[in-house]
Amino acid sequence: MGEFELIRNYFAAAPCAQAGEGVALGIGDDCALLTLPPGEQLAISTDTLVAGVHFPAVCDPFLLGQRALAVSASDLAAMGATPVAFTLALTLPEVQADWLQAFARGLNVMAQSCGLGLVGGDTTRGPLSLTLTVFGRVPAGQALIRSGAQPGDLLCVGGPLGDGAGALALVLNEREVEASTAEYLLARYWSPQPQIALGQALRGKATAALDISDGLLADCGHIALASGVRLLVEQDLLPLSEQLMRLSGLQAAQQAALSGGDDYVLAFTLPAQHLTGLQEAGWPVQVIGRVEAGEGVALIDANGQDIPVLTRGYQHFREIR
Amino acid sequence: MGEFELIRNYFAAAPCAQAGEGVALGIGDDCALLTLPPGEQLAISTDTLVAGVHFPAVCDPFLLGQRALAVSASDLAAMGATPVAFTLALTLPEVQADWLQAFARGLNVMAQSCGLGLVGGDTTRGPLSLTLTVFGRVPAGQALIRSGAQPGDLLCVGGPLGDGAGALALVLNEREVEASTAEYLLARYWSPQPQIALGQALRGKATAALDISDGLLADCGHIALASGVRLLVEQDLLPLSEQLMRLSGLQAAQQAALSGGDDYVLAFTLPAQHLTGLQEAGWPVQVIGRVEAGEGVALIDANGQDIPVLTRGYQHFREIR
Repeated sequence: MGEFELIRNYFAAAPCAQAGEGVALGIGDDCALLTLPPGEQLAISTDTLVAGVHFPAVCDPFLLGQRALAVSASDLAAMGATPVAFTLALTLPEVQADWLQAFARGLNVMAQSCGLGLVGGDTTRGPLSLTLTVFGRVPAGQALIRSGAQPGDLLCVGGPLGDGAGALALVLNEREVEASTAEYLLARYWSPQPQIALGQALRGKATAALDISDGLLADCGHIALASGVRLLVEQDLLPLSEQLMRLSGLQAAQQAALSGGDDYVLAFTLPAQHLTGLQEAGWPVQVIGRVEAGEGVALIDANGQDIPVLTRGYQHFREIR
Repeated sequence: MGEFELIRNYFAAAPCAQAGEGVALGIGDDCALLTLPPGEQLAISTDTLVAGVHFPAVCDPFLLGQRALAVSASDLAAMGATPVAFTLALTLPEVQADWLQAFARGLNVMAQSCGLGLVGGDTTRGPLSLTLTVFGRVPAGQALIRSGAQPGDLLCVGGPLGDGAGALALVLNEREVEASTAEYLLARYWSPQPQIALGQALRGKATAALDISDGLLADCGHIALASGVRLLVEQDLLPLSEQLMRLSGLQAAQQAALSGGDDYVLAFTLPAQHLTGLQEAGWPVQVIGRVEAGEGVALIDANGQDIPVLTRGYQHFREIR
């Protein structure tokens, strides 16, 4: 048995690889088999993370495993889907037992937290990279897609913005900051929490949704384009964490929120009649702007005046996507 | 728009990305959405191919696209599944329009030949590699898995063996041979034909199946282990192409057939009563041995005597899998 076959057996024995609901056949055959409840559709998303591009080449493998799966699961959240399963294609330059064990532990923690079962994959030798494909289920016709935003809808997000980009200087050891601030921001970078329950709560309410990975303005641009509308983002309404403010100050924090990416917070458009109900039910829904007829995205102040947008304020590992 | 975003748009416009049956939402949202007919399960397989490991770092991108998808689709064939869709995670060191166009053409030819629609993926910068995830549908409970072989079943394959491994010397330009022989063998390497229709014809008949990718003996070992049986392979019954015989001679051709891998021909176990019906219906079913109680795989001669097995006769790009 080759060392890579050993790795497959190792992952096959991981807690998250034990057959869960909807998994008719897991690791070990030519294909995995999933069963869908009647009337549901399967949501699928694939993401590749390359060492030195999407994450530092030298990093904690536990955190990498956690983050990689969180980033992918966030796409399921953005569709309002219920996570079911994932596959892992792992390319490694060499086999290091310690590294693999820590990576698998991180993956496993996030898999169990999201309700995702490992059903297959591939392990190959080569420069370090991972491709994760995640599967979720969603009632037919109820997925949150990008193309339904309507003029008059509110533009909302599910939590503070900019933390991911703000944390990058800490991830790269380029900045020092007091321990509690660093702890919060590093956790936001390394173990973002996919907003799965929020996504499900938005089914039948939000008219368009996505998760913020490219940066708020860029991602709002995706909704605007797909829906054929114009999105207005009010700068003073951007939710910013006190930790990011402490690290960066207001202006840089706003810049991180607008262009930084890596937040994995949901952004969505919502007819106004749903706002109070969601907020009263305890969902973290924060209004940051509105939808109008037109095209593109504008940043405005409290008086509705356009604010010039500074872009590319941050250096990303995620340079391409 | 970044160059990698341009690539995504380019793939999104490919003929194979136009929505087909079962694809409710294709490229361009956070997830693709698939719909399954009632009573069917979804079959999923993921394969990574790394340049310099699974294929020559310098090769024809059209052929690479074709072969990469064929290798993955072969896993659907091995389950008896009907191909539906695939995702492509493509990591490239740089954007070369010529390369991409040729690669996409090759991918497209194989996608349309197999009935697979491109529904999503990711394009990233890094050392050249591809991860393909393929999706098929199969009536619930009818997938061909590896674990059902029974003592008394025949061991069969769906076509000539060893061509893939035999062709490798030609792929690597290490051998010269007359044009017609080279043409046949190179086609077997670069555009293997996934035995999708055969897999479907075997539903409800074959008791175990897989596609030969690791080499006949190794893959028979997978069936033996999963089914808890012993497989006997009769050396004189191995189907060998005349082109492989011409290139390699009998002994090396047998060795390629037994250990070479890369054939993407189905191997399966079959209760004897189904043999004549399948063959009379024109299916390429060739008996190469039988199943008995016990464990492991044995190579035997026509008198049933054990033949010592020489392994690892060939150097593979596919060194790990």
